[in-house]
Amino acid sequence: MLQSTTVNRQITLASRPEGAPHQDNFKLLDGPLPTIGAGEILLRTVYLSLDPYMRGRMSAVKSYAEPVGLGEVMVGGTVTQVVASNHDGFQPGDWVLSYSGWQDYSVSDGSGLIKLDPESAPLSYALGILGMPGFTAYMGLLDIGQPKAGETVVVAAATGPVGATVAQIAKLKGCRVVGIAGGEDKCQFAVRKLGLDACINHKDEDFSAQLEKSCPRGIDVYFENVGGKVFEAVLPLLNTGARIPVCGLISQYNATSLPVGEDKLPLLMRHILTKRLTVKGFIIFDDYGHRYDEFARDMSQWLASGKIHYREQLIDGLEQAPQSLIGMLEGKNFGKVVIRVGDETPALG
Amino acid sequence: MLQSTTVNRQITLASRPEGAPHQDNFKLLDGPLPTIGAGEILLRTVYLSLDPYMRGRMSAVKSYAEPVGLGEVMVGGTVTQVVASNHDGFQPGDWVLSYSGWQDYSVSDGSGLIKLDPESAPLSYALGILGMPGFTAYMGLLDIGQPKAGETVVVAAATGPVGATVAQIAKLKGCRVVGIAGGEDKCQFAVRKLGLDACINHKDEDFSAQLEKSCPRGIDVYFENVGGKVFEAVLPLLNTGARIPVCGLISQYNATSLPVGEDKLPLLMRHILTKRLTVKGFIIFDDYGHRYDEFARDMSQWLASGKIHYREQLIDGLEQAPQSLIGMLEGKNFGKVVIRVGDETPALG
Repeated sequence: MLQSTTVNRQITLASRPEGAPHQDNFKLLDGPLPTIGAGEILLRTVYLSLDPYMRGRMSAVKSYAEPVGLGEVMVGGTVTQVVASNHDGFQPGDWVLSYSGWQDYSVSDGSGLIKLDPESAPLSYALGILGMPGFTAYMGLLDIGQPKAGETVVVAAATGPVGATVAQIAKLKGCRVVGIAGGEDKCQFAVRKLGLDACINHKDEDFSAQLEKSCPRGIDVYFENVGGKVFEAVLPLLNTGARIPVCGLISQYNATSLPVGEDKLPLLMRHILTKRLTVKGFIIFDDYGHRYDEFARDMSQWLASGKIHYREQLIDGLEQAPQSLIGMLEGKNFGKVVIRVGDETPALG
Repeated sequence: MLQSTTVNRQITLASRPEGAPHQDNFKLLDGPLPTIGAGEILLRTVYLSLDPYMRGRMSAVKSYAEPVGLGEVMVGGTVTQVVASNHDGFQPGDWVLSYSGWQDYSVSDGSGLIKLDPESAPLSYALGILGMPGFTAYMGLLDIGQPKAGETVVVAAATGPVGATVAQIAKLKGCRVVGIAGGEDKCQFAVRKLGLDACINHKDEDFSAQLEKSCPRGIDVYFENVGGKVFEAVLPLLNTGARIPVCGLISQYNATSLPVGEDKLPLLMRHILTKRLTVKGFIIFDDYGHRYDEFARDMSQWLASGKIHYREQLIDGLEQAPQSLIGMLEGKNFGKVVIRVGDETPALG
């Protein structure tokens, strides 16, 4: 469905999921275009980022941010274009990075907006390799992971926007890099296109044995994106002094209760103690916002010189967002998922 | 039994414990005095340190150090006096800190020995407040815990040699300090003698509720010595950005298997992610050996000015070591346990 100049489509949270989200948890509404007051800007959404953290916002429990309220528009990072402006700092036609959420149009007073230069990089990159996921990969790996040349770095979700970036930066730093991904096609991509030393399919029955074989000198850095059985396979392979940046736990997000069986918390603590592990969670802009320029400089250079490969999965249509998020939580995406809500040069309906 | 000039009593590891150690796991042997060759020194043990890590050495599994072999003398830090010397650097009568283990006499080539000045502090302090436990408390709290004035620091095993030191340093840094200990007497000591703001008896049925009430602004630093239910009570109270130095897990050392029930590992990881926790294990001399002087300077000043209180539990007789270690693992000690193997000024038998 084409973007309209008179209708504002919005996807709201209709109900909170129990376990995996369903289409029914979302509601697509048609509303009027918002109007702007003094000092305000009307933004048209072109690209909407889908990210695993959104599952957390759908629950009533506060994690690191407040949940989305029932009936409220789903949140999300967006690349938007200024349509109308009562703000001196923004002109119609300007491109900005905003947090407008799952809707065609939004109103801003300008705070928190970051202007984008459409000449310097594809606009959607601001939601991925040059934005939150890329920054997360960069700081998590370099500041918490502290990889040294010759060390072994294991990256979960190795073809996702964070994992693929972590893996390639680790290669640039001279590490042996072993990826973990869900599928043969993803693993082949990780080795052939991203240049990883090995990539293991966590759906293989002998996944743990393969991982051990691929890490003959143990694991020095494990970049945690997934949790669950992948983490349990990594744990015994960690070397003394290993570092674990904890960036995400996608395998847990849909869980409604703790698994039952052996309680492995004491096992983890024993590994932390006897191997002197560092396990550290982080939220990129809260912890590292002041170092964004450092990242942007390095990453722009790496992209320009072809040292970092970036894969995007562009999906057309705001109405595809719910199913795309549901699929991402099941590992069905391949690369950074971006919803194209409208055209960069709109053929308005 | 008095120390002899002709017999070397040694306590060896007779068998490996399943679960809690028993007297049968140890064997007291009488042997001849060792003789020294060129460049060697004969040392007489006066004080033997007992520490929780010794339980780990009794198991066949390598933790951070090699296990004690069956039939070998139990390891341990000791304050010893030079009896005879073929080494230019050591004279009979010199006091040295050594790692001579559970025996009356030992031979050294001088490597790793640290000379002690009997005038500067009680000799046994080198095994406690001025030695490994004090150094562990100092670096674990200050380097990993990074306490800031006004923050809440929770310390497990708050009257043990490490915990009591952590707690008092945290008070010196202007923190609210809440201890956890196993017994009313220990808790009273922690508040009245050590100056803690509160101390909770983990044997109380409403322990978790008491802890929560004592930490109205949450927990910023949790110094982990014990693991188990204490850690589980702390976990939900941790603030965003909290730090957890992992120094020991005494409640787990005698475990023969993982507990069964809910697997709380995913819960811990979720806390680490959403609260941006830092959880870090450390082994004091491996990680911080190069910063010993800094510690020794600060701690000597604090002791001299009465800012740090130190409680020792001196137990007479090498033959008491097995039962004392067994009791320590059950939390029966009160303060730093030191076995007086011989007199400082020997009345030799």
